[in-house]
This record gives sequence, structure tokens and C-alpha cells, in this order.
Amino acid sequence: MSTGGFTFNSFNAIDRPTLLLDEARVRANIDFMIEKARTTGVSLRPHFKTHQSAEIGEWFRERGVKAITVSSTGMAEYFADHGWRDITIAFPANIRELKRLDALAARIDLGLLIDSEQALGGLKAGLRNRVAIWIKVDVGYGRVGLPWGSQERIADLAVAVEKESRFTFRGLLTHSGHSYRADSPAAIRKIHAESVFRMSSVREVVLGRRVESCLLSIGDTPTCSLAESFPGLDEIRPGNFVFYDLSQLALGTCVEDDVAVAVACPIVGVYPAPGSGDEPGRLVIYGGAVHLAKEYITDTRGREVFGYLLESGGGGLGRIRRDLPLVSLSQEHGVVELPAGSAAGLRIGSLVFVCPVHSCLTGDLYKEYITLDGRCIPRLRHTDLP
Amino acid sequence: MSTGGFTFNSFNAIDRPTLLLDEARVRANIDFMIEKARTTGVSLRPHFKTHQSAEIGEWFRERGVKAITVSSTGMAEYFADHGWRDITIAFPANIRELKRLDALAARIDLGLLIDSEQALGGLKAGLRNRVAIWIKVDVGYGRVGLPWGSQERIADLAVAVEKESRFTFRGLLTHSGHSYRADSPAAIRKIHAESVFRMSSVREVVLGRRVESCLLSIGDTPTCSLAESFPGLDEIRPGNFVFYDLSQLALGTCVEDDVAVAVACPIVGVYPAPGSGDEPGRLVIYGGAVHLAKEYITDTRGREVFGYLLESGGGGLGRIRRDLPLVSLSQEHGVVELPAGSAAGLRIGSLVFVCPVHSCLTGDLYKEYITLDGRCIPRLRHTDLP
Repeated sequence: MSTGGFTFNSFNAIDRPTLLLDEARVRANIDFMIEKARTTGVSLRPHFKTHQSAEIGEWFRERGVKAITVSSTGMAEYFADHGWRDITIAFPANIRELKRLDALAARIDLGLLIDSEQALGGLKAGLRNRVAIWIKVDVGYGRVGLPWGSQERIADLAVAVEKESRFTFRGLLTHSGHSYRADSPAAIRKIHAESVFRMSSVREVVLGRRVESCLLSIGDTPTCSLAESFPGLDEIRPGNFVFYDLSQLALGTCVEDDVAVAVACPIVGVYPAPGSGDEPGRLVIYGGAVHLAKEYITDTRGREVFGYLLESGGGGLGRIRRDLPLVSLSQEHGVVELPAGSAAGLRIGSLVFVCPVHSCLTGDLYKEYITLDGRCIPRLRHTDLP
Repeated sequence: MSTGGFTFNSFNAIDRPTLLLDEARVRANIDFMIEKARTTGVSLRPHFKTHQSAEIGEWFRERGVKAITVSSTGMAEYFADHGWRDITIAFPANIRELKRLDALAARIDLGLLIDSEQALGGLKAGLRNRVAIWIKVDVGYGRVGLPWGSQERIADLAVAVEKESRFTFRGLLTHSGHSYRADSPAAIRKIHAESVFRMSSVREVVLGRRVESCLLSIGDTPTCSLAESFPGLDEIRPGNFVFYDLSQLALGTCVEDDVAVAVACPIVGVYPAPGSGDEPGRLVIYGGAVHLAKEYITDTRGREVFGYLLESGGGGLGRIRRDLPLVSLSQEHGVVELPAGSAAGLRIGSLVFVCPVHSCLTGDLYKEYITLDGRCIPRLRHTDLP
């Protein structure tokens, strides 16, 4: 078996784990989702928590996107500073940041999420400027939001929002995160159909209470990637699709050529398989939990896999080498299993590229991307946020 | 059942996930390990990758520590800039950073690790200044190092190092990382005894080849915390002990009062248990994988637990509430399971404190610690390193 071709030596300046970005793939992913929103007749309000980069934000703006989603106050401030004027913070409103939220509301169209009367009370006490309010609905994920079955309570809350002159009741918002636990594209489509039905049924009850208007917003990459239509929905908010990753590949929501990030890692140890038997060897790379994030998928043998190496792809990101899995991660070491006989040509000091399991978490460990032509694109990390 | 007393409201300025540090506990942990090294007659070369802070480094220096361990070239540069003159990089020498390693070697006593003739060849080709070389030995962990059983090869490599006038052969170094997989303190002590025996037996063979001297260095917090003696060893390099964490508690290598870090997180959602039955409620906190690191321990019911809440401890970090486990983490949300009837008094906007599973990974997400009296202590993250 040949393993030549999966070390990269063209990135001569790279001396430590480095986050690489394939700009052409990112732009293609952006185009795909914009086109899907256009043909299905919904608004696209992409979630920017995955890339957290003003420059990548511009690639969306160039294509006509005007409204975005973020997941924290600091991230909203950052993108407001970069000219975005319509931002929803798709995270339960954090009452400890009311002053900053109020200052934001003074300069942009700010959308906030609430899930309870308690949260509404918190906002009423601390906000002076106009904000749009979404009620977070739980359509089955079980994390955040009022259960879709509690329709009267949701309607009561919508009415209470509308009574406040500073607030505009915008509608109902959900994240069908249980789509990430689905075991097939068909199961994801089923979750999608169920979510659409549940959201629509809640809206019926809300509108029955003479609330003026009630938009419906959903947002998760699996559903938004696979669904062919969004009947009755007004807005989609996917985020991860901008990069995709091994988790999405495993779900069947993208193909290999859609995955737009990788981590370049120096080889620091080569341990060929000990003999002619089946016992594998291993490659030790400078690339651990602090460079890749400790997220795993389960392979066909039931093992935790923290990434796969990529072949060299003629200047781009190459094919995934499923025979070269990253089988363990400690703080800074990664261990790649090497099939017997495959260590030939591997040298300490060469680079390998790792396809990440969850690009949102991997990306958040870095303050910059390096494009395949060597350009640096700054990005935020959550814990850098002001 | 009362759950009062595990929300904290004295940290008024905290509005997002914040890494807290109990300075008194850190200093006590430092004292404990210094005292253990003194009474057992070994040198302590603490690993600074856990805290990555110049100021916390000073707390060691005040107590007489002069030699340290780090895990990357950038971390060595940082501590060299802060006056440390004897540093071992306990990570396989990264051949892609030879120029920086050589510059470091010109200004400090630098120790490097190799595991092969290939690595030695890389260093020979690129270093002009004197460095100390350790050979990494694998005593059973199976990650990095020459297997302890390949004693002739190790001895050959030691002889080859000694032949180079720029290199000083320092000795054999191991990390008994398999101690983290042990299921009892007795099992950890057994691994320790075995490691000591294996290292000593390799040294016998090395010294038999007329190598002038051969120190033995081990370093993992479980072993160093529990071992009562280090017969035949010269140096210990534990790191995590400075903070400890839930993983160490689960191993039995520390007690609750030793755990010196926690993450303060705002409550953003309260979902009381639905009825009088056993179905639990949940607390949603602003604190996800990007704030805590997605590392888990397995609880007595076989569940993945990503942390436990702490009681309010009268100004300090309080007792661990094992009835309040963090049962899921997404990018920025954490979900704490609430036993039925325990939601009373919990308010959106209050703070809770989370005891982390793996303090090295959690710490690496932050650029600063906040002490319990509100002081800010800067720290590095791996991906901030120059």
C-alpha cells in the first residue's frame, strides 16, 4: 500500500500546527447556501460563529447577504464594528450583559432570544433601546427553548413581548440540533419535516392571539444542507456549512470536496509497524487537543477518531485517507495509526494535514487562517472577545 | 433537597465564562510537590504547560525552583524571556523550528528530546549551540519514545549523542501517561514501580557502554502525587498538580480542596423538572466546549460528565456538587442536570462555578486568570505562542 503523497512540503514557513483554509471551497459553500435560500424562497441569515472573521464575512456581503447570526454579545459587537447592521444573537439573552446589549441596540437592528417570562423581565428591566425579540422553541433537541407543545405559554409570552413598546415581537426561532444525532440523510429530512410542522403549529396558536406577525426561523447545517424546501419558514441560519468537517461528512450532509479547513501539523515521530504482522505502527504529530479540539467521530470499528490525514492534492486539500486515522490526542501530541508497511518515506520534520472532526471548535483555537496561497486571514476566538 | 448556595453573586463584574484561580490552593500545591521532591531526594523540574503564566512561574521561583519543563519552542522562549535559564522542552524536538531552538540554546541551558537516529540527524544538521539531549523512553504508555525493551538501540543512540561535541547526553526521560488510565491509586503505584524498574534497567545497559552519566527523569502528576519514593530517579516533571481537576480527583491523586481552578458561568436558562416524578430538569449555562474544553469523565451511571457545579464556599471554591453534573456541552451552551425539585432560587443572570475535567485544556482556552480576590493574572494559550 502506498502512503506517498500525504505529506506536504510546499508550506515551508509552517513550523507548528496551523489552520489552513481553502478559499475556493469556502466561496463555493457560501454560493451553495445562498442559492438554496433563493430557490426555496427563504431569507438566509448565516451564523458567523463558525468562521468569526470579518474578511470571510465580506465574502457573504459581496453576494448580497445583509443579515447575520452570532452567538455572543462580543461577537455581535465585532461584526457591528465591521459594518453589519442586522444581527441576531442566537443564544439565550445573557442578562449580565444588558448594558452592552443596550448600547448595541442603539446602533444596529438587534435580535435577541428569550425562553421565559424571567428572561423577558430581565430584558425589560435593563434595555432602553428598541430590540427585536424571538422566542426560542424546542422542537425536539432538548437543550434550550420552550417545548413546542406548550403552545399557550409561548403565545402568552409573545403577547407579553408585544405589549412592551421597546420590543418588537419578531417570531419563533429553533435549532434542530438533534439532526446531528441522526443516522442517515433520510432521518435528517424527517427531523426537518417534523420541525417545520411543529413550528407552524405553534405559529397558528400565536397568530390566533392577534399577534401582528410571527416569523419562523430555523438553523442547523444538516437540515439546511439536505432539505429541498422550507415550507412555511421565513429564515434559515446555518453556520457550519461554510467549512463543513468530518462530522458533517459522517452525516452525509456534504461531500469531501466541500470540507474547506485543515490543520497542518509537523511530524515529530515515526514508529513503523514492528513486524510483518497486522500490528500497526504510528506517526506522532505536533497537533494535540489544544490544536484540533478533542471531538471525535466513531469509525466503522467503533473506535474514537479525532481526524484523518489528507493526501496531498496538487496544491489543494486532498482526499481523506481513512486508513490514516488520528486515534489519540493528548495536550499537544496526536497519534496517527499507520497500517503495517506504510511508514516508508515518512520523515520527522515533514508536514501532514489533518481533516478536523468539528470545524467550529477547531477554528476557535486559532487567531488566523492561512489560505492555500499563503495569505493570512485574522479571526476571533470566543475567549478573545471584548 | 436544597440546592441553595451554589450560585455566586459576589463576582459582580463577571458577565461571561471566566477562569477563576484559587491562589492559596495553587501555592499549597506547589509547596506539596516541592516538599515531596525534597524529602525523596529528587530534583523537581515542574512542567509549566498547565499554567503557562510568568506570574505563577514566580511562585515556584520564590520557593527555590530554578529548572522547568515546557512543551513547545514558543513556551520555552516565553519563559526564557521571563528569566528562566534551565528549560527542558519535553516534547519530541520539532525539526521545523531548528533556528529558534538554536537561538534559544545560545541564551539558556536547553534540554531537547529525541526518539530516533532520524531526530538526532535533524538536530545535528541544524544546531550550532550546545544543547542537552534526553532520549525519550516508552515504559508502557505507547505514545512517544523508544520502547524500554530496545535497550541496545537506546544505548547506541546515547553513544551517538555523546560523540557530538555540541551535545551533552543528559539521560533518559519518560512520561508514564498510562497512569491516567489506571483504575485505582494502587494501580498507579504499580505503574510507578514498573516505570522505575524499566528506566533503571535501560540505564544499566547505557552505562555499560561507557556513557559518562545518565540521569533518569519521569513526569506525570498521578505518579508524582502518589509515589512515596523515587528510587534511582534523578528528576520529576509533574505539571497538572499545580491546579489538579476532576480527572485527578477521579484517579484519587488529589482531594477536592486541592483543585485550584473553576470556570464562572452565567445562567441563561432554567428548566425545572416537569413534574413530581423522577425526570430531571436542567440549567442552561453560558459555558460550552469553547470555554470548558470537551473532555469528560464517566460517572457511576456510565454517563459522560463534562464538569460538576461547585457550592458557594464562603468566598472560596466550594464543595463539588455531584448531584449537579454538566451532562452536555455544545459550542457555547452547557447543560446541567437538575434533580427534580431543585430549581427553586435559580435565576437567569446568576453565576455558577464549574469544576473542570482537565484543567490543562480548560486553562488553555483563556488569556487570563481571575483570582478569588479579583486580580487578573495573564497567561498564554498554545496558539498565542510566538
